[in-house]
Amino acid sequence: MKNVAVVLSGCGVFDGAEIYESVLTLLALDTHGAKYQCFAPDMQQYHVINHLTGEEMEGERRNVLVEAARIARGEINKLEDLDVKDFDALLLPGGFGAAKNLSDFALKGSDCTVQPQVERVCKAFAEKGKPAGYLCIAPAMLARIYGRDVKLTIGNDAETAKAITDMGAEHINCAVTDVVEDTDHKLVTSPAYMLAQNIGEAAKGINKLVDKVLGMA
Amino acid sequence: MKNVAVVLSGCGVFDGAEIYESVLTLLALDTHGAKYQCFAPDMQQYHVINHLTGEEMEGERRNVLVEAARIARGEINKLEDLDVKDFDALLLPGGFGAAKNLSDFALKGSDCTVQPQVERVCKAFAEKGKPAGYLCIAPAMLARIYGRDVKLTIGNDAETAKAITDMGAEHINCAVTDVVEDTDHKLVTSPAYMLAQNIGEAAKGINKLVDKVLGMA
Repeated sequence: MKNVAVVLSGCGVFDGAEIYESVLTLLALDTHGAKYQCFAPDMQQYHVINHLTGEEMEGERRNVLVEAARIARGEINKLEDLDVKDFDALLLPGGFGAAKNLSDFALKGSDCTVQPQVERVCKAFAEKGKPAGYLCIAPAMLARIYGRDVKLTIGNDAETAKAITDMGAEHINCAVTDVVEDTDHKLVTSPAYMLAQNIGEAAKGINKLVDKVLGMA
Repeated sequence: MKNVAVVLSGCGVFDGAEIYESVLTLLALDTHGAKYQCFAPDMQQYHVINHLTGEEMEGERRNVLVEAARIARGEINKLEDLDVKDFDALLLPGGFGAAKNLSDFALKGSDCTVQPQVERVCKAFAEKGKPAGYLCIAPAMLARIYGRDVKLTIGNDAETAKAITDMGAEHINCAVTDVVEDTDHKLVTSPAYMLAQNIGEAAKGINKLVDKVLGMA
């Protein structure tokens, strides 16, 4: 049975992991007969957004690992404890947490950096030649992981794509129900809620991504 | 296209709506070609649980509607604005929020009461003869909605079942992948994470419940 590490970035689309993408990823892994373990960095969230109003909740502080534990029903480990040798593949759902907590792409665009534990883990899978899948906005950090020749998609948003190509990656427009494969890097990306109009569309792309990643593992 | 109201109780299994049950319910509705609108009561959560440790976060306050908005990606309305005439069916995912926020069953067992807005909405669907589906621990409140002759399941936990039968309801043991139908009341219940060992098991029961409820609508 293939064992997959899933890295979450909080709990909620605007300041953490996109919940549907995270749950649909876990469902797809289960459906494909894989097992998984969730991880998240033990760090403060960049900020906390009231998901009803879209406004920042001033003065509120939440921890990425503690909030991600909501998605994982408590079954989650610290990202620093992730050892690449224990896993066959890596998956990163999206949500703004990928661009605010796991990296600072939402704030700095093409000048972004990746959170050190995230960078360590993602590079470890890349260096071991183990496959990985990144959803939604999470692929924006991939030039920092795989270098300038990486191929990826975040859907078709021109401004986001430009920031990504400015880092040296190749951006390929992609439909929500499809994926972009970079076979040299054993890397699969899909737009998910960068484009999804409903949960069914997101599920189709995520199922395809999980299928491709497991096929490479 | 059938239109379904989904009532959430926060965001996270231990103090709010069970996230997988909520997302799988929305996915099943989409798969079945139904549309939906999420609702939650605008009230303080009973408490906030750190989902990493299982401990209460002393001094922390969160609002059920604001947290449920994370699951709904912001597309959620106040429960007090729900008008039964706009909907064909009602669905309540579980999680401890159903027994701590929507009712106080987790605290008072067979002496429980239902939060007034929840009671108003649930009784409205019952009185209009519109079908409803309740998952996990949410069925524990059904004697307060439908009266003493209601048939339901929360899985097979003897202590919980006794508290339910003490309120006058009939509890029927049920497998995680199955449902209990009370055709007189157009009511369907399924154990979900009262019994589920993995997300795939939960999905099977939830899909069956959504299929049955939509079939009655």
